[in-house]
Amino acid sequence: MHFRYCSIYSIFNPLVFTKINLKTRIIDMKKYIILFFSFINFTSFSQSNDESMVKHIFDNALQNGRSYQMLQHLTTNVGPRLSGSPGAAAAVEWSRHVMQDFGFDSVWLQPVLVPHWVRGQREIGQIVNSKKIGTVPMNVCALGGSVGTGPDGIVSKIVEVKTFEELTQLGVKNIQGKIVFFNRPMDPTKINTFAAYSGAVDQRGSGASEAAKYGAVAAIVRSMSTNVEDYPHTGGMQYAPNIAKIPAIAISTKHADVLSKLVKEDKDLQFYIETHCETLEDAPSFNVVGEIKGSEYKDEIIVVGGHLDSWDLAQGAHDDGAGCVQSIEVLRLFKMMGYKPKRTIRAVMFMNEENGLRGGTKYAELAEKNKEKHIVAIESDRGGFTPRGFTMTASDAVRQKIKSWKPLLEPYGLTDFDQEGGGADIGPLNKQGVPVLEFLPDSQRYFKYHHTPEDTIDKVDKRELELGSASMAALVYLIDRYGLQ
Amino acid sequence: MHFRYCSIYSIFNPLVFTKINLKTRIIDMKKYIILFFSFINFTSFSQSNDESMVKHIFDNALQNGRSYQMLQHLTTNVGPRLSGSPGAAAAVEWSRHVMQDFGFDSVWLQPVLVPHWVRGQREIGQIVNSKKIGTVPMNVCALGGSVGTGPDGIVSKIVEVKTFEELTQLGVKNIQGKIVFFNRPMDPTKINTFAAYSGAVDQRGSGASEAAKYGAVAAIVRSMSTNVEDYPHTGGMQYAPNIAKIPAIAISTKHADVLSKLVKEDKDLQFYIETHCETLEDAPSFNVVGEIKGSEYKDEIIVVGGHLDSWDLAQGAHDDGAGCVQSIEVLRLFKMMGYKPKRTIRAVMFMNEENGLRGGTKYAELAEKNKEKHIVAIESDRGGFTPRGFTMTASDAVRQKIKSWKPLLEPYGLTDFDQEGGGADIGPLNKQGVPVLEFLPDSQRYFKYHHTPEDTIDKVDKRELELGSASMAALVYLIDRYGLQ
Repeated sequence: MHFRYCSIYSIFNPLVFTKINLKTRIIDMKKYIILFFSFINFTSFSQSNDESMVKHIFDNALQNGRSYQMLQHLTTNVGPRLSGSPGAAAAVEWSRHVMQDFGFDSVWLQPVLVPHWVRGQREIGQIVNSKKIGTVPMNVCALGGSVGTGPDGIVSKIVEVKTFEELTQLGVKNIQGKIVFFNRPMDPTKINTFAAYSGAVDQRGSGASEAAKYGAVAAIVRSMSTNVEDYPHTGGMQYAPNIAKIPAIAISTKHADVLSKLVKEDKDLQFYIETHCETLEDAPSFNVVGEIKGSEYKDEIIVVGGHLDSWDLAQGAHDDGAGCVQSIEVLRLFKMMGYKPKRTIRAVMFMNEENGLRGGTKYAELAEKNKEKHIVAIESDRGGFTPRGFTMTASDAVRQKIKSWKPLLEPYGLTDFDQEGGGADIGPLNKQGVPVLEFLPDSQRYFKYHHTPEDTIDKVDKRELELGSASMAALVYLIDRYGLQ
Repeated sequence: MHFRYCSIYSIFNPLVFTKINLKTRIIDMKKYIILFFSFINFTSFSQSNDESMVKHIFDNALQNGRSYQMLQHLTTNVGPRLSGSPGAAAAVEWSRHVMQDFGFDSVWLQPVLVPHWVRGQREIGQIVNSKKIGTVPMNVCALGGSVGTGPDGIVSKIVEVKTFEELTQLGVKNIQGKIVFFNRPMDPTKINTFAAYSGAVDQRGSGASEAAKYGAVAAIVRSMSTNVEDYPHTGGMQYAPNIAKIPAIAISTKHADVLSKLVKEDKDLQFYIETHCETLEDAPSFNVVGEIKGSEYKDEIIVVGGHLDSWDLAQGAHDDGAGCVQSIEVLRLFKMMGYKPKRTIRAVMFMNEENGLRGGTKYAELAEKNKEKHIVAIESDRGGFTPRGFTMTASDAVRQKIKSWKPLLEPYGLTDFDQEGGGADIGPLNKQGVPVLEFLPDSQRYFKYHHTPEDTIDKVDKRELELGSASMAALVYLIDRYGLQ
C-alpha cells in the first residue's frame, strides 16, 4: 500500500492490518475492540478540535476509503437494478450484507411495493424511406413507464417541436395521427447542469401526454444530455389521467440532430417505432437501513442516503451507486475511527427513486408512524464528482448554523452552501418538517452518463468519490456534535 | 446543432452559420464584417456591463467553443511532442496555422534552441531470480534526461528508501554498487494534489544524483501518481554537477508496491535495468505567438499561455494541450465576439517546459531586449478540469484588484484566489517584475494521467475544458478593461 500518512485513527481500522475482505471484517474488528477501549479518552480529546476531526475524516477516507471498492462491486457484480428486477433484489441483499459485515448496530429492510416496468425484448426506431438516406435505424430506447407499441409498431410522419406552446399553436389538425418529436436541448450555457436538466426534462416527463392531447400517436424525445453523442438516455415519464397513453422513446442527441435536419428537408419523412415495454403488477421490494445508535440522544436521528435502484440500461455508478456507497461509508468511517456519535446515524438505501419514489415515501410514512424524530436528512444523488458544497431546504436558523461551519469545510472544496435543494428520496421527510440537504458535487460531467450504459465505474474517479464520502461524514459529524437547534 | 441559447454575439461568429473548417474560416468571416460594423455601438454598450460581458464570454465558449476540437487535433493528429522531436515541430506548425486561420493580427515564431533527449528503442526493468516469483518484467520507463545503461544493462541488488536522509543514514557501505529504489508516495491526504506532487517529486528530479553520491549504480523512482495503477509516469530529472551520472527510471505505482514487498522478503533480490536513452545536440525549435493589437494602450501586453511540448510517452491532452488551446481560445473568443481589446493580448505557446524551460526563458529575454511592457501573464498548465480559481504571484495591490472581481467570477465556479503560484513558463517574466497568475482547475484527476500514455483526449471533458477557456477570457477581459494599476 502506498499510504504514507498514518493517523492515530488507523489503529481502529482493521483495513490497515488485514486484507480487504467483507466476510472477515467482523472477526478482525474484534481484535481491535480491546485496543479501542484502551484509547477511550482519545475520542473525547479529538472531538474538542473540530478542525482536526474533519481532517481525520478526510485523511481516513482518502487513505483507507472503501467507497470505490463498494461501488465497483455494486456496479459490476450487481449491475443494473431497476425497481422490481432481479438486479434490484440483488442490490438489496448486497447492501444489507455490506452493512452487517461492517458491524453497524442494526441493519434492517423496510418492505415496500414498487412499480414494475419492463423494457421487453427489443426496441426499434428508424427513419423510413427518407428521400435522402433511405431507411436508417436510429439510436433510441423506450422511456421508463411508457406503454409499448406492440409487434406491429407505429409508423407515421414527424412533427418537431421545442415547447408545449408549439403544440397548442399547431393544434389537432397538424398533430393528429403523427409522431411528435420534442427537440429542445438542455441549455449549454447553464453552468449548473441540473438547471439545464430542469429546463428540458418536462419533454421527457410529460411530453407524451401533452402530444396525445392533440391526437399524436407516439412521442420521440431528445435525450437529456449535455453532450452530442450516441447513446439514448432513458428516464421516467408519466401519463396524465384521462389522456390516451401513447408510446414514448428517447433518441440520442446525435440522432436528434440528424432527424431534425431530415425532417426540415423532407416533410413527408416517416418514422417507425416498435417497443415491447409494459408495466407489470407492483412488485415487493425494500429500503435497506443501517444504523449506529447514538450514545446521548439516541432518539434524534440523522439520515444519510442514496437510492439503490438504477435504470435498467445503466450500471448506475454515478446515479446513484455513488450516493449509496458514500452513505454507507459515512457510518463505516465513524465506526473504524472509533467515533461514537451522540445521535443516531442511519444510512438509508432508498428503493425506487427513478420511477415512483415509493421507497422515500415509505420511509417517511414509517418515520411518522413510529414517531421517530429526524433532525436532518442528507442525500447524495448528483454523482460521485469533486465536492462543491451542499444544497439545503431548511429554516433560516438551520441554514445559518450549517453555514457557520463553512470555514471548517472550505479547505476541502466545499464552498457552496447557498443553493436551495435536497434529494428526491428525502422530500417526503421534508414535507414532515425535517430539514434536508443534498451533497453538491461538481455538475459538469453528470449528464453525459446519466441513465445510459456509459454510467460505469470507470467514469468515477476514486479520489473524487472518496472526497464526497468524507464531505458527508464531516457534515454529519458537525451536526451530531452540535445539533441543529 | 443543439444550441438553444443564441446570444447577439453569435452573429459575429461564423461558426454558427458554417461547418467547422479551419481553412474556410477567414472567407466566412469576411461575410460578417459588414454586419459587425453595423453593430459597432453594441460593443461599447456591452463593455459597460461586466456581468453581462462575462456571461457572454461563457455563453460563447459553451455554445460555440473550439477548445475541444483544437485539442482533439493536437493530441491525436500531432500527438506526443517532446522538445526537439518531429512531433514538437508539427505542433509548432499546427499552432501557427490555427492562429493565422483565426485571423489574429499577427502570428510569429520565436526561435529557441532546446535540449534534445531521446528514449531509444527499448527499455527494460525486471526483477531477476526472485525466490518467490522468478524473473518478472516490471512496468518502467526512463526518466527524461537520464543517461542510458547501454546494451549490457545494469543488474544489482535493491536498497529501498523513502527520503534522502535515509541515504545519509545508510551511507556508502550499504549503497555502493546497488540500485536505489525511491518509494515515497504522493501524500493521498493532501486535497491539493499539486502539494502532494511537490512533496514527492524531489525523488524524481534529483534522486539519481543523491543516490550516486553514495555509489549507487542506478535509481528507480516510484511514479508520481495519486493512484495505484499500471503505467509508469515519466518526467524530468537533472544531474547535479560533479556527481557520476547514473541511469534513472520510473516504475508504476502498482509495481512499486510489488517491488517493495519483494525487497522486504528477499534481501538478495536483484533488478535488471536496460535503457538506451541519450541526450543529443540541442535542437532548433520555437515559441509560437499570436496577438491581437490593443486599440488604446497597444504597448501594454497581456499574455495568456500554455506549453506546446509534451512528454514523448504522452499525447499531452491535459499537460498541456489544454493550456495551449485555452490560450488560443481566449483570443478567438474575443475576435468572434467582436470585442476589441484596449490592450494587446498575446497567446503564447511556450516550447520546452517539460525539460528545460528554454521557451519561457527565451520569451522573457526577448521581452526585456525589446523593452516590451507586460502588465500580466496568465498560464494554464494544471489540466483542462472544472474551474476553481486562479493562483497568483503579484503585489498586494494587484492581488486585491483581481480579488475585487471575485463576485463576477464566482458564479462560474471560480472561488479560490488565495493560493500563491503562477506557471513555470512565465516564471522568467515574473523575475522581471511581471505579475503572474495560473488558471486553477480542480486537481483531483490530474496526476492519474500526468506524463503517461493515459493523458488522452477522452480524459478531457468538453464542458470542463470550455469553462477553463472562458475563465481565462473573463479574467483577461477584466484586466484589459481596468488594467492592474
